[in-house]
Amino acid sequence: MGQPAGTGEHCEASRYFSRDFNAMKAWGELGELARAPYDLAAPGALSPARIRGYKAHAAGIDLLYSTQRVDEAVLSALQRLAEESGAVAQFLLMKKGAVLNRIDGYPSEERQVLHTACRDILGPVTPASDAAARAQSKGELEKLADFLAALEAGAIVNAAGEPFTDLVQIGIGGSDLGPRALYLALAAYGIPGRRVHFISNVDPDDAAATLAGLDLAKTLVNVVSKSGSTLETMTNEELVRKAFVEAGLEPSRHFLAVTGKGSPMDNPARYLRSFYMFDSIGGRYSATSMVGAVMLGFGLGYPHLLEILKGANAMDLAAEEPDILRNPPLLLALLGIWNHNFLGCETLAILPYSQALVRFTAHLQQCDMESNGKSVTRQGKPLAWKSGPIIWGEPGTNGQHAFYQLIHQGTAIVPAEFIGFRTSQHGRDLIIEQTTSQEKLVANLLAQALALATGQTHENPNRRFAGNRPSSVLLADRLTPYTMGALLALYEAKVVFQGFIWNINSFDQEGVQLGKKLATRLLAHYAGLRQDSGYSGEAADELGWALFGAAGVLAK
Amino acid sequence: MGQPAGTGEHCEASRYFSRDFNAMKAWGELGELARAPYDLAAPGALSPARIRGYKAHAAGIDLLYSTQRVDEAVLSALQRLAEESGAVAQFLLMKKGAVLNRIDGYPSEERQVLHTACRDILGPVTPASDAAARAQSKGELEKLADFLAALEAGAIVNAAGEPFTDLVQIGIGGSDLGPRALYLALAAYGIPGRRVHFISNVDPDDAAATLAGLDLAKTLVNVVSKSGSTLETMTNEELVRKAFVEAGLEPSRHFLAVTGKGSPMDNPARYLRSFYMFDSIGGRYSATSMVGAVMLGFGLGYPHLLEILKGANAMDLAAEEPDILRNPPLLLALLGIWNHNFLGCETLAILPYSQALVRFTAHLQQCDMESNGKSVTRQGKPLAWKSGPIIWGEPGTNGQHAFYQLIHQGTAIVPAEFIGFRTSQHGRDLIIEQTTSQEKLVANLLAQALALATGQTHENPNRRFAGNRPSSVLLADRLTPYTMGALLALYEAKVVFQGFIWNINSFDQEGVQLGKKLATRLLAHYAGLRQDSGYSGEAADELGWALFGAAGVLAK
Repeated sequence: MGQPAGTGEHCEASRYFSRDFNAMKAWGELGELARAPYDLAAPGALSPARIRGYKAHAAGIDLLYSTQRVDEAVLSALQRLAEESGAVAQFLLMKKGAVLNRIDGYPSEERQVLHTACRDILGPVTPASDAAARAQSKGELEKLADFLAALEAGAIVNAAGEPFTDLVQIGIGGSDLGPRALYLALAAYGIPGRRVHFISNVDPDDAAATLAGLDLAKTLVNVVSKSGSTLETMTNEELVRKAFVEAGLEPSRHFLAVTGKGSPMDNPARYLRSFYMFDSIGGRYSATSMVGAVMLGFGLGYPHLLEILKGANAMDLAAEEPDILRNPPLLLALLGIWNHNFLGCETLAILPYSQALVRFTAHLQQCDMESNGKSVTRQGKPLAWKSGPIIWGEPGTNGQHAFYQLIHQGTAIVPAEFIGFRTSQHGRDLIIEQTTSQEKLVANLLAQALALATGQTHENPNRRFAGNRPSSVLLADRLTPYTMGALLALYEAKVVFQGFIWNINSFDQEGVQLGKKLATRLLAHYAGLRQDSGYSGEAADELGWALFGAAGVLAK
Repeated sequence: MGQPAGTGEHCEASRYFSRDFNAMKAWGELGELARAPYDLAAPGALSPARIRGYKAHAAGIDLLYSTQRVDEAVLSALQRLAEESGAVAQFLLMKKGAVLNRIDGYPSEERQVLHTACRDILGPVTPASDAAARAQSKGELEKLADFLAALEAGAIVNAAGEPFTDLVQIGIGGSDLGPRALYLALAAYGIPGRRVHFISNVDPDDAAATLAGLDLAKTLVNVVSKSGSTLETMTNEELVRKAFVEAGLEPSRHFLAVTGKGSPMDNPARYLRSFYMFDSIGGRYSATSMVGAVMLGFGLGYPHLLEILKGANAMDLAAEEPDILRNPPLLLALLGIWNHNFLGCETLAILPYSQALVRFTAHLQQCDMESNGKSVTRQGKPLAWKSGPIIWGEPGTNGQHAFYQLIHQGTAIVPAEFIGFRTSQHGRDLIIEQTTSQEKLVANLLAQALALATGQTHENPNRRFAGNRPSSVLLADRLTPYTMGALLALYEAKVVFQGFIWNINSFDQEGVQLGKKLATRLLAHYAGLRQDSGYSGEAADELGWALFGAAGVLAK
């Protein structure tokens, strides 16, 4: 992974594309077009030809966008926006190892962005891929393959000579959300007899509830933290280690580490095996790195893990396509910008019609909102346009019985992205009233998209639907490991494309620091109270007074 | 539950209060005050006195609101808004049995709204409670007590004479979200050896995954549907009944029903026991009715169930208080209106710092968004002001490692409601670096509220925080059944108060009908395709053509 050359060729090239969003020609064009967006509620607006024609496809996933408020003129302007902003060109630079995680002229992380290298190795070698990062990813994957094979062969067992049946992943944020979403999505493909569990919250009840149901003697614990110092993860690791010791077990025979080289956790004496994560892969983009791979390899098996990576790689390749109608992640990014910046919608609902995707929206909340919830450009100037939307949602059809009332008839317009599959995972289904449950599920999904778009007139004002509420549908044949990998990569690329176009740094997270800092100061109070030494010093500044007041409120 | 007298005394009284929001004097006052809201980022803005003084309390819960952009003038205007809109007066009418679920002059549900009667029976008899509804609730609760006692005594057992260890609740929307949120919140109080499971989604993988881990012979199934005809619930019931029959078990020895009197499910031949739900209790307000009580009674035991009801009743009584500073649900409602209608915030994040509350936000999404996601007044006129916000959120500290970046530094302002507890549920905790995990949790919670409010200046623009991002903190000593009941009732009352002030009907859900209708038509296609009879008839209208196109897209 060559030198992070902040002033090298890649950096120059990326700076070329760092243009203010509102200075682009397409910005003005789209603003004009937004005065009269396509009327989905007009008679005949949703013709079969439109529904079938407004479709992009890659890596097994259809993106249906006939229910967006776009026509040929808008799509052309979005194509020009993609070109003017150099969205695809920047994506290629990213894969090649450009230092895109930076703010010009200010101290910043100055890092490459190479999560795509976790799966580049599964596809053809293209000009757009960083050779050093490929080699690094390959090395870790081979270490993992050896470890999994040793588990399989009975070469790694517990002190009693028994195989491991359970794995607890301890991590938070990117070390939890993406991996957990993937595991839950694909649990149907799990190795029989093996189970995976997760502890993330610093809430002590979280760890206690998970440990309660486990036979620790047969349990592996995978601790994931790049810095090796994440407060929640270290706290939970200690809590779980204590449980192992209390059970008379030696933790170093059970604990695995996924961490940065040289971190406090990079310590062979304390861990059965260590796997590495690298600075060029941000937490929220790390699900296909060792952060997710160790747990997925244990739970689903190595061949299924490779399928996930292959699907992700196939979508990464589709993201290199300059024609937006052939590039689903880019098209999804542009449709999002159309709704958010030009039609004025503040949020985006992501609504998977699959119970297995129960945590996928939570992962996307992080991936999207931590990446694009920013207020300054890559040159450190305050944004004069909106950056990332608020992402939320729950699986359908459950959501239909919950918050869809507001989506259909509320005073806010909520663009939606529906995700569905033509056939079920388990294959256990029942025909009731001539259709299967899976057919009911997918029929509901598409009916919602149509209902939101077309609306309904009615003599009773309470039964009127204004329509023109935009949505997209992502549709695949079945939720397989390959499809899941593709879906993950689709959203990763979507988020990155939007960041490029908004001219923000989608790869840092300075916004989480202030809360951390204040929590540390409040905790110092608690520690002080425990030692009965009372309150001291903090009141020297304004914030200190606030903390003082807060400590009083919290005291038992 | 007297006659639903659409033209009677109660109705007249409620009509008196049905005033347009923007016609109230307080609307103008608040609009003026919103030009210069309290500056939380100013030096000294968060004094200890303010932090400690801006606190309301009821039923064991503190509402801390020093980090809202309010001062005495705004609070006075909010008090006047409460009075002008008759918020508390309408709440009292509701409890007395007024027909508040209606739209004047148009066909509507014409129902009373009596969820408070589920717990009125646990408190003192006050003038504000409907005697007939109290008697009805009491009757069902006694039936449940008898049933639970018979299970306990071994009088009700399976065919092999063994006790039941597991219960599967089948329901969707209000028959799932509220009950599930309560059970997960209080699982720590569960009867040892008993477990509760939930099936809600029509996704066949949902049911299959749940059944996979169960010993059906020892399992009760609680089917919950008021109409006895909810598509998802009926489909899942059939699927689960089939599994029982395949296992050689007689379903009528295992299946319970919670349904409306006279519904297709009100059939003793098919169910071991039936419990009733009533038209005066809407699904999203039904968690403390039999909809939640049967499952909670089985899983947590009858005494814990009564504690939940007592906590809810205590909060219902607090909601009768006319002084907004002594009425937490009303104050929370008004602060929400201040942020939403006057400071222009479109969403509300609900962020519990407790893993046990993992599904509470999902319940509130339904309770709030289905109630208040409306576009017409109670007189059927289009709203000229915003109704309910978009509700979203995840438990902290997890959220801090996910989407808080946007909350702190994004271009959207996201008001937040934090929920926390001074001590943990399990009591299994560890002191690391001089503080416990629970202290870390609650310190993080308050630190977030302070950081959002005060912000931070910095020479690096990427490390600046604008501050003035408003939040409230709900703080209780411990998440007990009583506290959980109070918290549930607090939010139910908050939502109802907001609906009264916005002059909307918070008790119907016409907005979910169109999607259902279209899904039925699409399913007819599927059925047609199965019979190879092809497509017919639908193309006669515009929407038919859209459905035709959609069917093509969905075909395998």
